[in-house]
Amino acid sequence: MSTEDTNAVVFQPSGRRGEIAPGKTLLEAARELGVDLESVCGGVGACGKCRIRVEEGYFPTCGITSGAAHITPTTPLEMGLFTPDELAAGMRLACQAHLLGDVLVYVPEESRRTSQVVRKEASAQDVPVEPAILRYQLKLPPATLAEPTSCAERLTAALTEQHGLPPLEVDFHVLQSLGRVGQECAGDVVATVWEGRAVTGLDAGMELGTALGLAIDVGTTTIAAYLTDLATGKVLATESAMNPQVAFGEDVISRLAVAAHEEDGLSRLQKAVIDEVNILAMRATERVGISPVAIMDVVVVGNTVMHHLFLGLDPRSLAAAPFAPVVRAAVDLRAGDVGLAFHPGCRLHALPIEAGFVGADNVAVILAEAPHRQDELLLIIDIGTNGELVLGKRHRLLSASCATGPALEGAHTEFGMRAAPGAIERVRIDPFTLDVRFKVIGLAGWSDENPPAIVRARGICGSGIIDAVAQMLGAGVILKRGNFNPDLRHERLIVEDGRPAKFVLARPEETALGRAITISLKDVRAVQLAKAALYAGAKTLLRRYGADAPDRIVLAGAFGSYIDPVQAMSIGLLPDCEPGLVTSVGNAAGHGARLALVNLSKRREAAQVAERVEYVELATDSDFQNDYIEAIHLPHMYDSFPKLTQALTAGGAD
Amino acid sequence: MSTEDTNAVVFQPSGRRGEIAPGKTLLEAARELGVDLESVCGGVGACGKCRIRVEEGYFPTCGITSGAAHITPTTPLEMGLFTPDELAAGMRLACQAHLLGDVLVYVPEESRRTSQVVRKEASAQDVPVEPAILRYQLKLPPATLAEPTSCAERLTAALTEQHGLPPLEVDFHVLQSLGRVGQECAGDVVATVWEGRAVTGLDAGMELGTALGLAIDVGTTTIAAYLTDLATGKVLATESAMNPQVAFGEDVISRLAVAAHEEDGLSRLQKAVIDEVNILAMRATERVGISPVAIMDVVVVGNTVMHHLFLGLDPRSLAAAPFAPVVRAAVDLRAGDVGLAFHPGCRLHALPIEAGFVGADNVAVILAEAPHRQDELLLIIDIGTNGELVLGKRHRLLSASCATGPALEGAHTEFGMRAAPGAIERVRIDPFTLDVRFKVIGLAGWSDENPPAIVRARGICGSGIIDAVAQMLGAGVILKRGNFNPDLRHERLIVEDGRPAKFVLARPEETALGRAITISLKDVRAVQLAKAALYAGAKTLLRRYGADAPDRIVLAGAFGSYIDPVQAMSIGLLPDCEPGLVTSVGNAAGHGARLALVNLSKRREAAQVAERVEYVELATDSDFQNDYIEAIHLPHMYDSFPKLTQALTAGGAD
Repeated sequence: MSTEDTNAVVFQPSGRRGEIAPGKTLLEAARELGVDLESVCGGVGACGKCRIRVEEGYFPTCGITSGAAHITPTTPLEMGLFTPDELAAGMRLACQAHLLGDVLVYVPEESRRTSQVVRKEASAQDVPVEPAILRYQLKLPPATLAEPTSCAERLTAALTEQHGLPPLEVDFHVLQSLGRVGQECAGDVVATVWEGRAVTGLDAGMELGTALGLAIDVGTTTIAAYLTDLATGKVLATESAMNPQVAFGEDVISRLAVAAHEEDGLSRLQKAVIDEVNILAMRATERVGISPVAIMDVVVVGNTVMHHLFLGLDPRSLAAAPFAPVVRAAVDLRAGDVGLAFHPGCRLHALPIEAGFVGADNVAVILAEAPHRQDELLLIIDIGTNGELVLGKRHRLLSASCATGPALEGAHTEFGMRAAPGAIERVRIDPFTLDVRFKVIGLAGWSDENPPAIVRARGICGSGIIDAVAQMLGAGVILKRGNFNPDLRHERLIVEDGRPAKFVLARPEETALGRAITISLKDVRAVQLAKAALYAGAKTLLRRYGADAPDRIVLAGAFGSYIDPVQAMSIGLLPDCEPGLVTSVGNAAGHGARLALVNLSKRREAAQVAERVEYVELATDSDFQNDYIEAIHLPHMYDSFPKLTQALTAGGAD
Repeated sequence: MSTEDTNAVVFQPSGRRGEIAPGKTLLEAARELGVDLESVCGGVGACGKCRIRVEEGYFPTCGITSGAAHITPTTPLEMGLFTPDELAAGMRLACQAHLLGDVLVYVPEESRRTSQVVRKEASAQDVPVEPAILRYQLKLPPATLAEPTSCAERLTAALTEQHGLPPLEVDFHVLQSLGRVGQECAGDVVATVWEGRAVTGLDAGMELGTALGLAIDVGTTTIAAYLTDLATGKVLATESAMNPQVAFGEDVISRLAVAAHEEDGLSRLQKAVIDEVNILAMRATERVGISPVAIMDVVVVGNTVMHHLFLGLDPRSLAAAPFAPVVRAAVDLRAGDVGLAFHPGCRLHALPIEAGFVGADNVAVILAEAPHRQDELLLIIDIGTNGELVLGKRHRLLSASCATGPALEGAHTEFGMRAAPGAIERVRIDPFTLDVRFKVIGLAGWSDENPPAIVRARGICGSGIIDAVAQMLGAGVILKRGNFNPDLRHERLIVEDGRPAKFVLARPEETALGRAITISLKDVRAVQLAKAALYAGAKTLLRRYGADAPDRIVLAGAFGSYIDPVQAMSIGLLPDCEPGLVTSVGNAAGHGARLALVNLSKRREAAQVAERVEYVELATDSDFQNDYIEAIHLPHMYDSFPKLTQALTAGGAD
């Protein structure tokens, strides 16, 4: 596997591999390959942290033969550090072992660098901090009469001589200020370098300071911003706000219409979102006591329309088939070019788009969940105003977008609301008494465990409405077609025109509204349409993939975190799956954006992913239409979901 | 002198020479070598304007043997056109005579093109039009549901498939407007491409339109702007104005002080010059009835301080030794980045700087005069507030900068003024009677050929003051040290404190001022200092080069055009040279900027030239100091200038 000039090096358990020049240490190899390997002393053998194990034998999956003979012998320093057993097992310090041939290296848990890693949840990947922005301390020599070299020449020469960087471009604003830095552009300076390509900032003195990054997830309804220390990868502050474009229209279609037809529509939409991001950045930086001018790098994700409006790209080609985006590849530009008021050298990286409505947010979700690095068949469902689906594993990924409507986000239903304090998020209905108990965000315990007066429900969020529909179905309040059971009479059933038309979830005394919170036939219909679209979309992807069911289901999106998988499956929102293998990962798009912010190779990975994902256009798939119509009915659970049924009857899930 | 494949062709009196492929016409040779030769019909023999004479014999200075046998025989067309005497003298039409061997060609006065030339004078080179900006007609295919490729992908693919261009970057503002172009970014479009590297503009339709370029020469005192059609290389309009930075200080030193010490000094200086250029561009484009938005490319030249202030580069390192510029290499950026209000994709190219005070204007002068392509040792003197000197020929170039002060530009002397209508530009003094006659810009003939009342002199410009000092010296009004002859009494000599202190050039009735225009001792002193600096600078360069004298002297700068070489030499402003070999080339810096605007390879040539020129720091050259002090005295002409003397006594020059 190795060429004549290099050796193959594979690190486990990360699986990272590459060709490394002989003579390099395993620590250097780990750095080159982006492997998380602890080293405090920088590789001089002083800290003893970079412990690894060199495996012996032939490893057919890697195609290499590895062994102690392929690295330089154990040093006295190592002999003093390891026990004889450890030495016999192949333990080494990565900084002391130089490459002589191919090796397979195991990095034990205690040697993995984890403190500096960005992640929120268990399912997120750890990534090493390898940001686009690096800072370098420099000593700029003065010009002399014999060598009256320009400031710019001395700057780039110093980066080359003192840090081994190739000749770099220098941002024009840096040129403009060069004469102000140090004494006649000489002395101690700190240069900020973007992607090893351009000098984007320069400060006098020796202080490295804090280079901040901002990951932005622009949703149709919500904007989230993550302020990050680019040197450590740590999220310093998170801010979010309603997307002010909501004032122009709640869904992407109405905003496309504004951009296309209203005067200055596009620039007003762009200004609205940019202004809000500037405010979020201001708030976040205030919290940590640093100016927004310290923000040197931004990564933005969003669905295709949000992406276009954020960047000010005229989106009219997205308004009609074939829904061609203006640009699909990642876009790199100066953040100031879209109006972000950060450092003048701050860059903006918009992750690539897959196709049509499967946007940069979906690429970010894939980056975060990494189905393309796994051997299990993963179905990722990102539920928002648009549902975005990804199905796949290593070697093949499919994606699709389906219009779920806003019902699952708690909008467009009579008592619908976002998942905010006061929202009913869980519902249980006794199938015999039709008694209702529910959970309210912000309230401890169930409603019936509290005095009615303090329950103060204000509405129903998406997970609450799914629960309600599932429980109403289970209790026989509604039937397979979604309509109310015409034969049922109960104090919670409100009859209109002689037929049951609404079901009371919260009695007036349990609400903050002074009246009952109910579920109407219209609400049930909205849930039916949304779940049918998601289900039929997933089924279409499974059919294209040639699989019956996914191995795991990942629910992404803030909404996904609240969903009860059993309830969702019981109304047919998710394909059949063992409930324990359904996980919620929260705002995976935001997480993906953060990964791309702190790790440059994640941006390259995103480009590859976006290129590789096979986009399935559901609108023109006749089987999808068929599945969709069939899925509008509510399922008879025990027929449709053998895995779910098995899990439930075995008592495995609540 | 000629190689096997080419013939040496030398044109007189310009002295331009080069190697030309056999079979080409002498008209084509003249075009290739940048010789101004009239041709109205474009070389088809119809206009009879391109009359030249082919010289017979061996010419040792050129090293070639020339003769009628080295060109194709006289054609019947020519026989009908020329008299037998003319034919016998070697007269030909350049368009009819094809090269067979080396030739020396004389271009008579009447055949020199003077009207339609971008520059006023004979020595400019013509260059092929090879601009940085090219336009391409494209058919963008629509996206399809099967291939929902992005607009950007289809644009770059169309440039590749329809025009063979490599995959290009697309300017962000082009991306932003892509959705507006054509129907959903499909159909006929015209793409503007910069340097074969980036798409900088996009227009719907099939019309190529006019891509304009602007060459800008920012002088300390004057700004000149040349509006150019980038497709033809033709100058469409020329505008000039006083540099409004004059309000901040007349010389570069005082402007450096403003930039360094006054609040917002740099940005106010930059805004002043940029605003003025925007106005010049507006005026120039109005004249041709096109919007400034059609300007797609700009080249700017200027001395180092003007260059820095134009670009907004903090110039404080230029204020003290070692006078290091912020950047020496050429700078490419978007014109909008410095505030130029042209096309959003318009680029700005600032030519490189040589060193310290030898700026991009000097690089442009070298580009225009091309000493590095010649075998004669050329001394180029660009006279402005700073004098810039270049000495060299093929393989070696030296440059230097010397502070001449503003006297030669007509400033800082009592009656000094720019070379504008009303300025005395020529002076002759009768050595016996001390009668004065002079020429005034805007007045036909000499002052004594007109009634005094219509002479209306308003002041003295630089060439007038040189003439006056030279003639006063020749007539014994002033002596070698520059002081007035204490023994002389004359009605034109105004005596103050018992000593002659001023000399009357124009009597009150000959002026528009109502009083006499005089030359004072202070004026003479200013000229002495200026000419001493230039002379000593030239001498230092000659010494470094190892040459006694230049083969030719070129006077560049608007001021240089007005100088009478004999007078200038007689006060020791120029080193000794045959007066016929001193030529004035007008605003060579502006011409060089125009060459770089219309020809991309000239930009590369400029980079090489700037890299190669050896900059001589006069301030630290002890011989220069010595020469300077010695040169302050006015010379005794016949001792110091054997070549000049010989020419004058032979009656060869007036």
